[in-house]
Amino acid sequence: MGEAVRTVGYVGIGLMGRPMALRLLGAGVPLTVWGRNPDRIADVVAAGAALAESAAALARASDVVITCVSDTAAVEAVVFGPGGIAEGAGPGKVLVDMSTIHPRRSREMAERLRAETGMGWIDAPVSGGPPGAAAGTLAVMAGGSAADHAFVQPVIRHLAGAFTLMGPSGAGQTTKMVNQVIVGGCKSVIAEAIQLAMNSGIDATRLPEAFAGGRADSSLLRQSVPKMVSGDFTPTGHLRTIMKDLDMVMELARETRTPMPMTGLATEIHRMMVAHGHADTDTTSVIALLRDKPVL
Amino acid sequence: MGEAVRTVGYVGIGLMGRPMALRLLGAGVPLTVWGRNPDRIADVVAAGAALAESAAALARASDVVITCVSDTAAVEAVVFGPGGIAEGAGPGKVLVDMSTIHPRRSREMAERLRAETGMGWIDAPVSGGPPGAAAGTLAVMAGGSAADHAFVQPVIRHLAGAFTLMGPSGAGQTTKMVNQVIVGGCKSVIAEAIQLAMNSGIDATRLPEAFAGGRADSSLLRQSVPKMVSGDFTPTGHLRTIMKDLDMVMELARETRTPMPMTGLATEIHRMMVAHGHADTDTTSVIALLRDKPVL
Repeated sequence: MGEAVRTVGYVGIGLMGRPMALRLLGAGVPLTVWGRNPDRIADVVAAGAALAESAAALARASDVVITCVSDTAAVEAVVFGPGGIAEGAGPGKVLVDMSTIHPRRSREMAERLRAETGMGWIDAPVSGGPPGAAAGTLAVMAGGSAADHAFVQPVIRHLAGAFTLMGPSGAGQTTKMVNQVIVGGCKSVIAEAIQLAMNSGIDATRLPEAFAGGRADSSLLRQSVPKMVSGDFTPTGHLRTIMKDLDMVMELARETRTPMPMTGLATEIHRMMVAHGHADTDTTSVIALLRDKPVL
Repeated sequence: MGEAVRTVGYVGIGLMGRPMALRLLGAGVPLTVWGRNPDRIADVVAAGAALAESAAALARASDVVITCVSDTAAVEAVVFGPGGIAEGAGPGKVLVDMSTIHPRRSREMAERLRAETGMGWIDAPVSGGPPGAAAGTLAVMAGGSAADHAFVQPVIRHLAGAFTLMGPSGAGQTTKMVNQVIVGGCKSVIAEAIQLAMNSGIDATRLPEAFAGGRADSSLLRQSVPKMVSGDFTPTGHLRTIMKDLDMVMELARETRTPMPMTGLATEIHRMMVAHGHADTDTTSVIALLRDKPVL
């Protein structure tokens, strides 16, 4: 069976977006990009992407528009703001929002875009970080219609190891909230485990080897150990990002009357790090709170 | 290179010990067992193990003695109590204690056994649960001398996917404490993630599929989902066991001046479950605290 060629527009060339855009270009996907500051996306244009003069122009040129921006306000601005995607939208096009935003707001914006322009919307937040983006193995959690999911599948398959439709509009965002509970909470737990090992005379770099095949083994542990042990918190994921996500999680927890004592504590641990000025460090820097000397 | 045949004694046929003993028999290892209540180990005897009349007799008949009992007091009783292993101990034999006990107490007992009898001691607590024991894929975290580790390796390899020497006597127990931080803490976090999904209309049984390859994916999640979603808390690991381990972790945390806010909270969450009478349920039952109806 032949596969449809989709023209793709990408908005949001950042830590995650850059490797994703480069993967699409590498796969031969016709790609248009746009950014408020063209200098920041010059490398992606140099790699073969067309540069649109606005998000609206990008949407006009594309069957599938991918957005991957920092928060709800940024999604709203790039879609519904002046010169935004909605101005170039129309039936037969689908927006894939890979940003992580509140499920309810995602649902509301999806409904508005369809009502005003006929353009579809798949919420499709991701997990796997820049390494997963570069390798095309991201876990992509989707919400929306089965038809829109199938329409964008030929594009997203270049980026995702799994592209799982979890339910109607918003279900991808809800699933990402659940993902962030595990990432933010377990990372905070792993920080304590590693610091206890270091304080007890255990070579913490050997923990993944010792735990292999047991219940404590995980990719999160294997990714966390080198940074947490060395104290090199060069960001591959910003602490400010998981802080924002955990605040949304606790909002969803209140709305659904779900008691989340561990996640509440993890949220406040991250807030302490932000309050101390470490919003732009790597998420693994939470271990610094546990050390008996200032490491930041 | 030929491999030495070791005669093996096993004390502590329980949730973990039974599948381990049966694996050793299945591998053709000459096995002797002993228990206070012979009825409880009749199946292992029927499967080919010799039945010793005391732990001392078992030790006399064995090159390698494995103990896997519930806590420090139980290890002390079976090794140094009347008719215990120490009475049948001697140079050239090695005890492998797979129980999870405090690292300092393990070190003290190892020193005492060597001083009084010449018998070696490897602390070798495990992670992986009864399924890992049955499959022979346990993560075994070892402390002791390299010579003793090598001596017991031909036996332990039938039980372990990894048998990692982490340092001198006690280092295996310390590593297991670190393991339990992750298991106890992350399981408590995973319970909140699953309950949030269920309360938000997400099919939580599909979370492992949606997370595959991402940062929230783990074997702990995959093992927890079916039990936590169904509420079938038939024990494959007892809540009372992880409660005991978490109390030892917090003791080690105080001794090493390691702040462990997440682990402290997880410990108290488990204590609430024990206080409410659920010590003998599966460890996954902590999710019951998060539900808006009594499920236990």
